[in-house]
Parts: sequence; C-alpha cells; structure tokens
Amino acid sequence: MACMAINFAKAQEKKYVLVVHGGAGTIVKSSMTPAKEKAYIDALTMALQSGYKILQKGGSSLDAVEAAILVLEDNPLFNAGKGAVFTHTGRNELDASIMEGSTLRAGAVAGVTTIKNPISAARAVMEKSEHVLLTGKGAETFAKEVGITMVDPKYFWTKDRWDGLQEALKADSLKNISNKKSMHTDKYGTKNMDHKFGTVGCVALDKLGNLAAGTSTGGMTNKKYGRVGDSPIIGAGTYCDNSTAGISCTGWGEFFIRTVAAKTVSDLIAYKDYTIDQSAEIVLGKIKTLGGDGGLIALDKEGNMAMPFNTAGMYRGAITEDGKVEVFIYR
Amino acid sequence: MACMAINFAKAQEKKYVLVVHGGAGTIVKSSMTPAKEKAYIDALTMALQSGYKILQKGGSSLDAVEAAILVLEDNPLFNAGKGAVFTHTGRNELDASIMEGSTLRAGAVAGVTTIKNPISAARAVMEKSEHVLLTGKGAETFAKEVGITMVDPKYFWTKDRWDGLQEALKADSLKNISNKKSMHTDKYGTKNMDHKFGTVGCVALDKLGNLAAGTSTGGMTNKKYGRVGDSPIIGAGTYCDNSTAGISCTGWGEFFIRTVAAKTVSDLIAYKDYTIDQSAEIVLGKIKTLGGDGGLIALDKEGNMAMPFNTAGMYRGAITEDGKVEVFIYR
Repeated sequence: MACMAINFAKAQEKKYVLVVHGGAGTIVKSSMTPAKEKAYIDALTMALQSGYKILQKGGSSLDAVEAAILVLEDNPLFNAGKGAVFTHTGRNELDASIMEGSTLRAGAVAGVTTIKNPISAARAVMEKSEHVLLTGKGAETFAKEVGITMVDPKYFWTKDRWDGLQEALKADSLKNISNKKSMHTDKYGTKNMDHKFGTVGCVALDKLGNLAAGTSTGGMTNKKYGRVGDSPIIGAGTYCDNSTAGISCTGWGEFFIRTVAAKTVSDLIAYKDYTIDQSAEIVLGKIKTLGGDGGLIALDKEGNMAMPFNTAGMYRGAITEDGKVEVFIYR
Repeated sequence: MACMAINFAKAQEKKYVLVVHGGAGTIVKSSMTPAKEKAYIDALTMALQSGYKILQKGGSSLDAVEAAILVLEDNPLFNAGKGAVFTHTGRNELDASIMEGSTLRAGAVAGVTTIKNPISAARAVMEKSEHVLLTGKGAETFAKEVGITMVDPKYFWTKDRWDGLQEALKADSLKNISNKKSMHTDKYGTKNMDHKFGTVGCVALDKLGNLAAGTSTGGMTNKKYGRVGDSPIIGAGTYCDNSTAGISCTGWGEFFIRTVAAKTVSDLIAYKDYTIDQSAEIVLGKIKTLGGDGGLIALDKEGNMAMPFNTAGMYRGAITEDGKVEVFIYR
C-alpha cells in the first residue's frame, strides 16, 4: 500500500523541466576562444541550475524563470541587465516581459535605465499592478515604489558593449558619407549589423504542471528613437499558456513583432494540433521569408521542448527532472 | 465586346469597403443628448466618407485607413489625438499603430505627447524606418525629422477630458482614504472607472484586394507609470494580413494584450477556417472570461465585416462599395 501511495504521488507530479536561451546570432566556433566558450557554457549551466533548484523543491515555474533570468541578466556576457548594449546616444535601455501559463497574467517593462533586473520589474508589473506594460520613467517610478532594486545607469556600462557602440557609430558615419544625399532607411533604422542580438529567455514547467516564460534584453546596439523590440511585447517575444506552451524568442525583433511570433507558436499548437517543433519551425520559416532571423525556445505542458533557430548559433540549454544539463552554442 | 470588357474589369476589382470604430464602453442612450448623438454620428460618417473617397478613386487601403483615423483623431469627441484623456500627472500620452496586409509591414508609436496625429507617425515608422515600435521622446524626434506635424502638448488640452481626470483623481483619493493600510492593487493601477476607453480604429479593403488596419488612442484616464495599452501593440490592438483579415480593437487594453486579441482573430481564420464573426466572438469571449471587456472591428479579403463588442455600446460604422453608410452606437 505504501508503495502504491508513492507511485500515485509520482503520477500526480508532472515532469519538470527548464529551458534557457542567451540569444541567437552569428555565433561561430571560429570567432570563439576556449575560455569564452567555457564562460558561456558555465553561465547557461548556472542559470539552468538556479531555476532547477526551485522546481526540484516544488517551487513555481514563475519563480524558476525569474531565478534563471536573474543569473543571465547579472552576467555581462549576455545582452540583458548588466551587459546590455548601448543605444545610439550611449544609454542602456532595457526591456523585459514575463507570463504565467495558468492565469495568462503577464507583465512587462520597456525602455528602463535604472532597474537592475528588468525581469523582476516585469514580474512586479504583473503581480502588483493592473497593467501589463509600463514604459520609461513611469516604469522606473513604479519599480522603485514596489521595492525593486534600482541602480545608477552607470551600473550597465561595460567596456565590450561601449566598444561595440563605437564600432557601430563609425560604420554609421562612414555610411552617411557615402549616402549623403539619399534618404536612406538606414538613417532612421539601425542596420542589423552584427546579428548578435543576445536577448535572454527562459521557459519552465513545474511539478504542478504550470508553465511560465520570460524574456529580457538590452535591445540592438546603436538603436535610436526609443526603439522597442519584441522582448517586452506579450505575443511577440514572450507568450505562455498552460494549454499550449511557453515561448521565449530572440532575434531580429521587428520580424518577431510583425509575425507575433510567440503567440503564433501557441496558436499553431492550439488550433492546428501541431507539435511545438512543427509550430516553431513554421514561425521561424515565416520570419525568414520576410527577411528576418532568430530563434526561440518553447516548452509544452508535457515537457516537450524545442530550441530552433535560423542563425549561425544560439546560446541555449535545458535541464530535465533528473538534473541532467545540456548546453549548446552552435548548430 | 465593350460590355464584356467592362464586366471583366469589374470582376477584377474586388469590392472595397471601410469599417471604423470610435471606442467601446458604457455608452447608453439614457446618458446621451440628441445633439451629442448627432455629433458622434456625423463624425463617424465623416471618417467613413473620408476613407471611402480614397478607395473609390482606386487609392490604397493604407491611405484610406490613415485618412479615416485622421478625422477621428482631430475630433475632440474621441479619445485619440485631440480629445485624448489625461494621465495621472495631467499629460496626454498618445499611442497608435498601423499595419499593411499585403506585406505584413507595421509601424507604431507609444507614449508621445507632441505629435498631432499619431497614426501618421505610426505610418512613418513603418515606411521610413526599419523599426516597428518607437516610444516617447525618441519617437517624437523621429517624427519631427521625417516631417510629421508637431504641436505643443497644450494642443491636446480639452475641458471635458480635464474634468474627467479631476473626477478620477477625486475618486482615487477617496479610495486611498478608505483603503489606507491595504496594499491594494488600485494604488498601482487605474481601476477601469467609467469604461469609456474611446480608442479609434479603421480597417479598409481597397480595389486591389489589399487590407490595412490602424488604431489610435489616448489611453486610460488617470493612467500611471507610463502604462501602455494594446493600441500600439501589433498583434494585440491591431493586426492585418491579406490572407485572413484586418482587425482593430478597443476596450480594456490589458486583456487584449494578454489574449493577443487581433492576431488571435487572424489565426482562428487561418488555422481553424472560422469566419471573422466566429473568430471575433471567440476572442471577445476569452476576454470576458478573464474579466475584461471591449470590442473590435474586423474585415476580411472578401469584404465580410464584423463589429462585435461586449460592452453596453460601441461607436462604429461601415461604408460599402455603393457608398452606403451605416453607423451604430448602441446594441
């Protein structure tokens, strides 16, 4: 009888699993040092284990997603939190979103410059306001009021990202000289110069069978005009519904917005009965047709996961119920 | 033969049609004067005819959508452009988005305070930048650079909306007294006090069979913390795909974001083969289940239209190929 009771309890527990990404882009082995490769693998592993510890203890997928993303936000290797790229005017403007699959509650912040961990602010918007998306100074005021850790904007300064901006500005000014008289779209956009978008994201499934998903980013190097990408947009960069899947995207944000990428993956599962693999492939195919690229991670209620991308590489990894960590960088 | 040629040409021309809305909410006949009712009907009619003129001449659905929304933005009766409601701090922060069904190009602005017609700025983002969503001061800098009409923020001041803010602030402060010690969500949200959201929107189908959709709003009275609703969010407030439909939403924005309302209507048509009526009803039903309300207008490539809502009323109307105008306010 005791044995049966244990089996019964086990059957009630769904398999728990956690998937993370650290951005898709032109990530190729030839431009990587062994030390840098190890640093990425270690960071992704740490993020996975940080979320796993919570799931293992019976914690919520929401807590696990936040914990995993905090690790990536705090690591300057990734374009989110500390390590965010610079805008055209030399600022770090951060975006993040989070969503809970059991309730379809969601929260997001966009264009914030003084919030240490935007993913925690996004969660606070979801849990402590009636809103979904707060932006700029207003979002910062809210975050401060609810006790989110605030920092001086200088906290986000890193040499690597500053050098990246200087290179982008130089390339821009050379382009302006050669195209002086043409009303070229580049003047008002930021050519997707190095394809290293570096958004981070996580999807988790907890023991109760609840999904959660989150995404955090520093946007595009040299971005102008208060540009906001897909990361803080529910439906585009993040979506989560227990009845379908949790999804977090990374890539050329404009294309993920136009295709409403994350929600479309969810709808293909809901309305066409496709697997998450099939659904994710269809959405990335559409993005490619339109001229964009990127990748995504998706996890369904059964613990099936997909991590497709159509760039050269994507920092990604998963941890399963047995604690087994798998981390990948290249194709 | 001449006759046949004419018939052939006619067969090539799709039926053109244009649908507008001026917001859903607690719009009931008992609280309306005949003069005010007439003013709304006249304004909606003018918007419809303004877009129709363009379609009739063979102009694009994109031009027609912009033209119709300009009429509504310029009319202080509607909560968009002139007539926008005030935020908690007494500002008018405007949002708008537009999308083209033939290319899936899209543009949007959020939280702008000095752009006379946000819908034109959204279109400029789509056509003159590589981005989809520009926010705040950055969006204004962009708009100015591309020649969009700028105004002093005072342009948006109207007595009606100012009085509305004062009432909301008074109600808020009374609530704070009665709930002094509780960390009530209202403190960080704006209770959906009068349900008069007043977003405006338009969907058009031109002679070439191309769809376009747009939405523009002043948001919620007494909104705080840089809150952004569904109107500038592609997928939530606006979506348009020639292969399915054009959609513009109005209502309690947070629920339209969480359900990714506009794209879900499109996906139900694409993946379930539902009519626009069925698709729109399913999405509004989901919003109601979650506790929200509102309405939407949708128009498919065949010229079929839907204008459902689950509030007391919705300002709405349509004009068909024969120039016949139909305008409705109540159920």
